[in-house]
Amino acid sequence: MTDPRIAELRDRVRSFVREEVIPAERELAGGAEPTDELRRRLQQAAASAGLLSPTAPKRWGGLGLSVSEQAVVLMEAGYSLLGPLALNCAAPDEGNMHLMHKVASPEQQERYLAPLARAEVRSCFAMTEPSPGAGSDPSMLRTSAHWDGEAWVINGRKWFITGADGAAWAICMARTPEHGDSPAGATMFLVDADNPGMQVVRHIDSLDRGFVGGHCEVQFTDCRVGPEAVLGEVGKGFAYAQVRLAPARLTHCMRWLGLAQRAQDMALDRVTEREAFGSRLADLGMAQQMLADNEIDLAASRALIAQAAWLLDRGERASAESSIAKAFVAEAVGRIVDRAVQLHGALGVSHDLPLALFLREVRPFRIYDGASEVHRMSIAQRAVRRRTAARSPQ
Amino acid sequence: MTDPRIAELRDRVRSFVREEVIPAERELAGGAEPTDELRRRLQQAAASAGLLSPTAPKRWGGLGLSVSEQAVVLMEAGYSLLGPLALNCAAPDEGNMHLMHKVASPEQQERYLAPLARAEVRSCFAMTEPSPGAGSDPSMLRTSAHWDGEAWVINGRKWFITGADGAAWAICMARTPEHGDSPAGATMFLVDADNPGMQVVRHIDSLDRGFVGGHCEVQFTDCRVGPEAVLGEVGKGFAYAQVRLAPARLTHCMRWLGLAQRAQDMALDRVTEREAFGSRLADLGMAQQMLADNEIDLAASRALIAQAAWLLDRGERASAESSIAKAFVAEAVGRIVDRAVQLHGALGVSHDLPLALFLREVRPFRIYDGASEVHRMSIAQRAVRRRTAARSPQ
Amino acid sequence: MTDPRIAELRDRVRSFVREEVIPAERELAGGAEPTDELRRRLQQAAASAGLLSPTAPKRWGGLGLSVSEQAVVLMEAGYSLLGPLALNCAAPDEGNMHLMHKVASPEQQERYLAPLARAEVRSCFAMTEPSPGAGSDPSMLRTSAHWDGEAWVINGRKWFITGADGAAWAICMARTPEHGDSPAGATMFLVDADNPGMQVVRHIDSLDRGFVGGHCEVQFTDCRVGPEAVLGEVGKGFAYAQVRLAPARLTHCMRWLGLAQRAQDMALDRVTEREAFGSRLADLGMAQQMLADNEIDLAASRALIAQAAWLLDRGERASAESSIAKAFVAEAVGRIVDRAVQLHGALGVSHDLPLALFLREVRPFRIYDGASEVHRMSIAQRAVRRRTAARSPQ
Amino acid sequence: MTDPRIAELRDRVRSFVREEVIPAERELAGGAEPTDELRRRLQQAAASAGLLSPTAPKRWGGLGLSVSEQAVVLMEAGYSLLGPLALNCAAPDEGNMHLMHKVASPEQQERYLAPLARAEVRSCFAMTEPSPGAGSDPSMLRTSAHWDGEAWVINGRKWFITGADGAAWAICMARTPEHGDSPAGATMFLVDADNPGMQVVRHIDSLDRGFVGGHCEVQFTDCRVGPEAVLGEVGKGFAYAQVRLAPARLTHCMRWLGLAQRAQDMALDRVTEREAFGSRLADLGMAQQMLADNEIDLAASRALIAQAAWLLDRGERASAESSIAKAFVAEAVGRIVDRAVQLHGALGVSHDLPLALFLREVRPFRIYDGASEVHRMSIAQRAVRRRTAARSPQ
Repeated sequence: MTDPRIAELRDRVRSFVREEVIPAERELAGGAEPTDELRRRLQQAAASAGLLSPTAPKRWGGLGLSVSEQAVVLMEAGYSLLGPLALNCAAPDEGNMHLMHKVASPEQQERYLAPLARAEVRSCFAMTEPSPGAGSDPSMLRTSAHWDGEAWVINGRKWFITGADGAAWAICMARTPEHGDSPAGATMFLVDADNPGMQVVRHIDSLDRGFVGGHCEVQFTDCRVGPEAVLGEVGKGFAYAQVRLAPARLTHCMRWLGLAQRAQDMALDRVTEREAFGSRLADLGMAQQMLADNEIDLAASRALIAQAAWLLDRGERASAESSIAKAFVAEAVGRIVDRAVQLHGALGVSHDLPLALFLREVRPFRIYDGASEVHRMSIAQRAVRRRTAARSPQ
Repeated sequence: MTDPRIAELRDRVRSFVREEVIPAERELAGGAEPTDELRRRLQQAAASAGLLSPTAPKRWGGLGLSVSEQAVVLMEAGYSLLGPLALNCAAPDEGNMHLMHKVASPEQQERYLAPLARAEVRSCFAMTEPSPGAGSDPSMLRTSAHWDGEAWVINGRKWFITGADGAAWAICMARTPEHGDSPAGATMFLVDADNPGMQVVRHIDSLDRGFVGGHCEVQFTDCRVGPEAVLGEVGKGFAYAQVRLAPARLTHCMRWLGLAQRAQDMALDRVTEREAFGSRLADLGMAQQMLADNEIDLAASRALIAQAAWLLDRGERASAESSIAKAFVAEAVGRIVDRAVQLHGALGVSHDLPLALFLREVRPFRIYDGASEVHRMSIAQRAVRRRTAARSPQ
Repeated sequence: MTDPRIAELRDRVRSFVREEVIPAERELAGGAEPTDELRRRLQQAAASAGLLSPTAPKRWGGLGLSVSEQAVVLMEAGYSLLGPLALNCAAPDEGNMHLMHKVASPEQQERYLAPLARAEVRSCFAMTEPSPGAGSDPSMLRTSAHWDGEAWVINGRKWFITGADGAAWAICMARTPEHGDSPAGATMFLVDADNPGMQVVRHIDSLDRGFVGGHCEVQFTDCRVGPEAVLGEVGKGFAYAQVRLAPARLTHCMRWLGLAQRAQDMALDRVTEREAFGSRLADLGMAQQMLADNEIDLAASRALIAQAAWLLDRGERASAESSIAKAFVAEAVGRIVDRAVQLHGALGVSHDLPLALFLREVRPFRIYDGASEVHRMSIAQRAVRRRTAARSPQ
Repeated sequence: MTDPRIAELRDRVRSFVREEVIPAERELAGGAEPTDELRRRLQQAAASAGLLSPTAPKRWGGLGLSVSEQAVVLMEAGYSLLGPLALNCAAPDEGNMHLMHKVASPEQQERYLAPLARAEVRSCFAMTEPSPGAGSDPSMLRTSAHWDGEAWVINGRKWFITGADGAAWAICMARTPEHGDSPAGATMFLVDADNPGMQVVRHIDSLDRGFVGGHCEVQFTDCRVGPEAVLGEVGKGFAYAQVRLAPARLTHCMRWLGLAQRAQDMALDRVTEREAFGSRLADLGMAQQMLADNEIDLAASRALIAQAAWLLDRGERASAESSIAKAFVAEAVGRIVDRAVQLHGALGVSHDLPLALFLREVRPFRIYDGASEVHRMSIAQRAVRRRTAARSPQ
């Protein structure tokens, strides 16, 4: 990345993360979720540093970075578990901002997107359902909404809704029947947190703890919203999910890769300090192998992200490329952190260092936003279609 | 295993674990370490069922099983995180009983081993040290003891001392100078918990939480013990460590493999219940691949344990075989649990199921009792020596 | 294996292979298939040494070893690519002897099995078909036979029929319609090589070259055989295939594992002789890792074979266990030889050593006798059934 | 790659390879090395199509592509085993052209580079030595040269010298003592094929067969050359080796990746044609997993090559990046071809398809041009140095 403006921004984010954010990680000790108080403190610091909302359009107060530029900045932010939160570019808000920017009406943008981009509120995205509902296979969506003549009435249960507790509003995905000119399908609804029909049932106690507002189970019971709550158009929910998913997957990769780089830096420090069997760890072949495999995984991850970002910036959908990047990076990040733990020995599995926490945080990434197996299925199917088409006579 | 006596014992352990022990796992919710109160309750139930201390000699009230028989029983016990504790065959007590049985004087056995085999007390084994002391490389031992004319005086710091908090006594490994006829080397000392020179500094907050008494940091400061505290002979500490290690590694493998079998059973249940993409998970190729890889890993682990156990029962040292089993099983168990998590999707990383806890518990096994890399180094060195010897002219 | 009789036999096979067989490997230089002349020479030497036909029943002149004993002897034989041929326990004859012993009528045994066990002739097993016929999925069998009132008439094409060129007879698997009391299904036929309806079309030029008589494509065109040519009973072909497969898979594993041990021994020799970066290769961590991984793969392979052999000797079908062993060992052997090649650098890919040839020979083992994926599918399905049954109320 | 000029060139190369080059692969049947007659025929066709010498500077008649542009064209060329040869961008000539362009004197360029770029002659690069000489560790160089007052006299043995038989000249790397102002070190010499002191001893029979002129063993015996034969300066041989290596590694990656793409295309064709277990292979999960892993490996390889190429085009050395790309791509290409073979079943290991040949061709790539382990060692060492520097106070 040679643009001096971005290089300068990257350096500022790097300093900010090391000086302001990493010290705050101690507040996650013992597996505590970050609090809204911590969030506000960090976001105010980021705002003072001019680093808030790098992915949001300038019009809404963000830095308006291209996807390629986001890659640079979000990796730096991800160097701390709290960095993306501090910069207001963490999931799910970052993805919601993108979706609202692309799909919402001007009124919806003013009401929902603007305060989100200013980090005044948080939001959530209510799509995933517990078994036997929509998990890996979105077509199994069971939450439904129907128009009763006066309002849309939503019923169903969602879970692993990140940040639901404390969010000002939710985007809720529900199955909808044919409605006017709109075909049967799925529709996204904007639901205010104070809607009595939407209730956060519990925080799901999960392996990862790094998200403010937790991963929640959310119940929709006769939840009534007006026609203005429809995000975009009725029946287009699955299409909008795709609008959100490809870039959201990629920003996930950027953030997690930053954390993997941190783990590798810790490992590189460790091997120059620790000795065993008469050598520095850094000079032992098996340690070198782990360090080199980490470097390779980091380089391949960065390169795959860069390629997909470049395509997205050119206006392509990059579905295949973002799927490939997600599948690879999610697994690579897991390997990198795991090797860093191994290189630290017993210290690596203690919480004296944050590595053990990183290990917990990154594991779900192979499941969230499309399990590795689902991505592989779609990657294979796309490859088969592409090849079949290439062989067909025109 | 065709011995009907062992098959019957296995079935009794199986029932006991499912009926009495697994329900108690809920007391570990939220990452709580098992308490001594829970331990006593479970061990009384095991005693009532005639299942206490399967690895301890009959003379001391145990079941006196051979290593091959232990393999059967400890895998069943390991099906629950609390099973080995319930049966009084968990680390470190199980290894300490073995060591005391082999090395301790009759007086030491009466005083220390007998109450341990009856599960009246717990013990600990204080060998590992924080950097730059003895971790993977035991020759880096820094804790030292010297004879001041009246007593042995031990100084040094230990960490990851499992079960230290609440243990009635510790075996402490310390570097000792030449002493009488004994060469310089290492010596093991029995230290009572009320010795003012031994102090539990803290519980190390670790990825795994399943051990009663935690993983502790322990300080020895001018810790004075009499000559009767020397376990076995002065200067033979490293040799005794080998006596303890090979079988202790293997019982570790047995226990963890039981947990891996539990994870696989949960995965097998899941895939028959959950559908996606129009099929039962059980009928999807990628799920089958994970299930099959688990079966292969389980079978290979069982087979390696069986082979090493058979050799130990024949009186061989089986150092190479137990090292190979440890390296393979520790990694296989991690893979098995990881695949079971993946097959459960988001549910797998939630603590609604114990799988996420299992994932945390098994990760350190690749580090504890010899990191995989250290075992590989010694496996390779042994293979080179064996081959070189085979080629030499006689 | 402690039986001194078997230990002595193992030592004799070991000496025979090193002294008589390995020197003959030079006749495979340049990728030449072993000739029948070479086969006869080696088999006469083996007969003189009392080592011929270790798997054949004593009644037919073999050594009558149990499966567990075969494991010991066939691994030693497999130490050379030509060892199994020399001892007359190579595929496909070894599997055919087993099948004929279990299923053939006394007359068929006298006529076909007896000379095979005496190594007077070779045989072949004609089951696999080119696409779209029976490959991984035997239910796709297209070769058919019908009774025309006087004879069975076989039509179809087979390929990868090992040893077909020069075989005295073939077992041909064909789809048969309902016939008398026999249901529609598959039937095995004994076809003499001089039957004009059976023709060896070509040797398939394959990655592996180590089988006498090659891998052939064989055409059956109105191939007429009498009722006495039916092996066992009409319609039971698929069941007999299972009778042959489980032990044949296991003997495959034994033989290939012997070759893997040879590759590892070569690697162990190499690392003590070659230096780089100021050390013996044997002292470099990455080399140690490869050597250790080979030791682990060898030990796990041996242990899985031993377990399945033990079950077969007890009269169990051991389908799951032999499938697991086949899947694991086929992949392990590939990894072991690959690592041995890598440890030899450029020398390893030259044919100055036989390693490059080994690499070619072992690759197809992941496909022959059930591709790894097919085994994994059936391993998973069995595990699901077993678990479902275990949960069912009785 | 959006430059329409390059897209057009890529399409022309693609057509040329499919129409003119792939049909010629049949001449490699049975493991035959390509002949110089075949080479000339293909290169004339490429010259007619305006596609000769894409990496050579325009001044010498090449296409003068940047490294990033080479990536596009060489991957297309590599789609056939004979493509790089046809376009005169195969190893070792392509690397030699680069080195001569960077280091040779104008006279040397006129005499050696010009005819090479016009594909009138072939060349070779004589660096690697048999044990105990320079293999993975170049510092073990044993071939030596000394100035006897009238000429340089070279003595030593080289092996795996690709293309030596039939080459018009060689670049020979030899250890040289202090000479004038030049320190002791290594020096590169240009040796004409008719020099009586240089002799091709044999073609080494190797796993891969795709290089014209083979991999040869070459003996230098009192090989006398004049001062004008010194390439660049005396004593700078190791530095020049680096000049050649980084880009040569990368062009290796490009070519092999083209072959991997071909293997994947064959696999994609196969899975839509072949059925098993009642489904197209393309719809079976385990097949999808292999196809998807191939897509991921291809994408990551392409991305790593693109990143390193971009750096080289900016004038950076990109040593770390080209090392990472080499280590990853060499292994990825092996995995891709291996999976393609597996998806073809028995057909995949037959030479009815070129896949079995591809498998043989790509295996040595993990050894040639720096074994994976050597690259990992240097990748780790660089990472440690970079991190140590980043932490140092300025």
